[in-house]
Amino acid sequence: MASHYHPVTPEVIAKLKVIVGDENVRCDEETLIQYQTDEEGNPHYFRKPEVVVFPGSTEEVAAIVKLANEFLVPITPRAAGTNVACGAIPVYHGMVVEMERMNKILEMNSDALYCVAQAGVSTNDLQEAARAHGLLYAGDPSSSENCMIGGNVANNAGGNKAVKYGTTRNQIYSVKVVTPTGDILTAGARLQKCSTGLALEQLFAGSEGALGIITEVTVKLRPLPPFNFNMVCVFRDEAEALALPNKILKAGIDPTSLEFMDNEAIAMTAKFLDMEFPHVKDGGCYVIVTVETFHEEEMERKMEQLAELAEANGSVDEFEADARIWKLRKQFAEAARAIDKMFQTEDFVVPLDKIPEMTAQIPDLTKKHGLYCVTVAHIGDGNIHVLPLNREGLTPDEWFEKIKAFHADLFPRVYALGGKMSGEHGIGFKKLEEFAKNTPAAELKVLKAIKLALDPNNIMNPGKLIDMNGDFVH
Amino acid sequence: MASHYHPVTPEVIAKLKVIVGDENVRCDEETLIQYQTDEEGNPHYFRKPEVVVFPGSTEEVAAIVKLANEFLVPITPRAAGTNVACGAIPVYHGMVVEMERMNKILEMNSDALYCVAQAGVSTNDLQEAARAHGLLYAGDPSSSENCMIGGNVANNAGGNKAVKYGTTRNQIYSVKVVTPTGDILTAGARLQKCSTGLALEQLFAGSEGALGIITEVTVKLRPLPPFNFNMVCVFRDEAEALALPNKILKAGIDPTSLEFMDNEAIAMTAKFLDMEFPHVKDGGCYVIVTVETFHEEEMERKMEQLAELAEANGSVDEFEADARIWKLRKQFAEAARAIDKMFQTEDFVVPLDKIPEMTAQIPDLTKKHGLYCVTVAHIGDGNIHVLPLNREGLTPDEWFEKIKAFHADLFPRVYALGGKMSGEHGIGFKKLEEFAKNTPAAELKVLKAIKLALDPNNIMNPGKLIDMNGDFVH
Repeated sequence: MASHYHPVTPEVIAKLKVIVGDENVRCDEETLIQYQTDEEGNPHYFRKPEVVVFPGSTEEVAAIVKLANEFLVPITPRAAGTNVACGAIPVYHGMVVEMERMNKILEMNSDALYCVAQAGVSTNDLQEAARAHGLLYAGDPSSSENCMIGGNVANNAGGNKAVKYGTTRNQIYSVKVVTPTGDILTAGARLQKCSTGLALEQLFAGSEGALGIITEVTVKLRPLPPFNFNMVCVFRDEAEALALPNKILKAGIDPTSLEFMDNEAIAMTAKFLDMEFPHVKDGGCYVIVTVETFHEEEMERKMEQLAELAEANGSVDEFEADARIWKLRKQFAEAARAIDKMFQTEDFVVPLDKIPEMTAQIPDLTKKHGLYCVTVAHIGDGNIHVLPLNREGLTPDEWFEKIKAFHADLFPRVYALGGKMSGEHGIGFKKLEEFAKNTPAAELKVLKAIKLALDPNNIMNPGKLIDMNGDFVH
Repeated sequence: MASHYHPVTPEVIAKLKVIVGDENVRCDEETLIQYQTDEEGNPHYFRKPEVVVFPGSTEEVAAIVKLANEFLVPITPRAAGTNVACGAIPVYHGMVVEMERMNKILEMNSDALYCVAQAGVSTNDLQEAARAHGLLYAGDPSSSENCMIGGNVANNAGGNKAVKYGTTRNQIYSVKVVTPTGDILTAGARLQKCSTGLALEQLFAGSEGALGIITEVTVKLRPLPPFNFNMVCVFRDEAEALALPNKILKAGIDPTSLEFMDNEAIAMTAKFLDMEFPHVKDGGCYVIVTVETFHEEEMERKMEQLAELAEANGSVDEFEADARIWKLRKQFAEAARAIDKMFQTEDFVVPLDKIPEMTAQIPDLTKKHGLYCVTVAHIGDGNIHVLPLNREGLTPDEWFEKIKAFHADLFPRVYALGGKMSGEHGIGFKKLEEFAKNTPAAELKVLKAIKLALDPNNIMNPGKLIDMNGDFVH
């Protein structure tokens, strides 16, 4: 490796203890092993940190970052570690800065519709706190029960409600950030519009920790729509199912969620849950639709409209998507993990009108690469999760190579349709090489220029998103 | 001035002519005088360019930018020149790059709901082209009849519909940009969500030409709501009028426009238009509300709801806001200009719940500075335009000093409430010094780092937004 980093010395450890207190600096082997990965299951990617630090305030984070610059120790920021692109793996070892102690909701203003939360507040707690005031926090990643708001912003997390409310970047007013050189910055403001300076909050959102550590977030809250319905539309023909979402959106039904599960995904998860679901045995796939409204009549009108639209477009059955169905959708990743703990989630996204053209290529592609795949999708966003599962028991390195060959075939097709490789998971360490290969030189040049400008020592989450050391792109 | 720029030599002119053709390079005195200002009326700010260039393609723009770097000639990008913050004034002289020849709509896809337009397409033409397909382009600056889409994006223009649809940054999928070093870059993509790289399209939107020249824009189109109503609610008590918007938003009425005009503004514009308007003589001020819906019953319900809400909160009359009323609202700036061609538009923005606290300070503040002001506001956004008018006939320099003293008093109050100095007009050259004074050092450091990283020679719209030469901040 071409890296220029220094090891974490006893001197660094001692200084860290002064900043955050002895009990918040850990170097024991058990902790280091725990932090060698995030949600990633393939040991091929694992890297152990040299120390894990648990700051309690923005000021402590700033002091840590200044120390890291002084001693040239790389920092890997981490919230809940639910990243599925190896974004929280300490690629160059060094220091993990774990935000879990900063878990307070600092302000909940139900009148002015905003909430200020520290980075380590769990997304679920934030949603619940809003709901307790009759309000909605609209960010809702599939990992909401485990993830934290700081990670959501850093990653621009998506999820099931993004089709209506947008991704996490659309939920934020402002972020407090410790820059890679240790300055404390508030980017953005609690304003409905702003043409004062650059949109730095949008630059930091989705920057995957490469431009700084988010310590505090001011999010938007919304009135909670009192009426809703959930409907499953069942299709025998996958192409017909995949053509429905665009029609739903154009009809003005304005769904909150618009999800797709193919037959394999339903069958796999049903088996894992030991539950029965309709039409699984006759090859059915599901389009799951949630609609929320402020008026009952509107809800009823849209329910009828949706059922008619689905039937006119090939749906063979519609029924209520109750809690069982949402369990099926949400437990899907766990079911995959039970089969293959190294399970690989593709996360590409294409324009809505290109979904059929993209998905039509998947069967041949997986066959060519000898992969068994299941598919779920945030289909209202064009964000498709194809999951190759290692059923043949390949070794971690063999599996890595197989997936690499698959990606070399897959991503150029995604980009050819105007798509991108990640809709919500990010690039992290896992897709760094593919990102560099599929991104135009002029764009990489700008990314690198910004990274170097803000992080001259390249200590902030190096080896993720932007490859400054050049170790991973061959 | 500390600037390091070189003059535009005959050699530079000759090379420009090779790039864009003889007829598209102008150095005649009449042209140079025309381009010494934009919408600005105070000669204090005027600066003449040395040459004006009219490129016809992105490639020509890139060649011009490379030439400017080679010869260290500053570039001022310009679309329609409707900027009201001196954003299109060539502060360091040099070269104006005028985008008006790039005026083609390249693609209008009414099925997939997007439009690709060159930077010089007029916003009005874009709106009309969408409407011809039964669709809405939701960007709608007050200057829409004169401005161009490239300028709208560069400035993150707001306008009357931002309360519902957001500002121009919310209307864009992607932008084609020539970077300050002459690379051609497409930032963003036609996707509903994306976590692939940094949100560069959001960085360029609102960057006021300081980070590159936008040459092409892909914007979102929306279904056009078929039903609408426009209502004026009349108040005798300004504070009651200003408290209504927040109540309208919380009631879920979801207005498309939510505008305020004080009595002085109505009277001034009525006189200019030589038209009569209700309640002007008895001191009335107006809250003008537009609501658009997809269903007639929803429109009717909201109309009733709004009238009840207005009356319960002090409205003394409600009537239809017809074309006359919108003419009143839109001709307001022209009316101000007829009194004072140097008219000054404040453009600050505060959180919605801080509007009363902010506006309550204005009368004392204007009195203290001996200013006569009229006020209009995009009140649903918290974006308030207070317009001091030079009725005493001060000279340009005297007026400049008077406004400077007013700003020194005004902006700290705006920032103390969590506001910012510009909601939609930008910083430009006009508010550069105040921006630097009111912005925290850590934020300015990041802005300068990004600017220097992308524009190492500081040739791209220097003296606007980010003061790299240090000539304007004393």
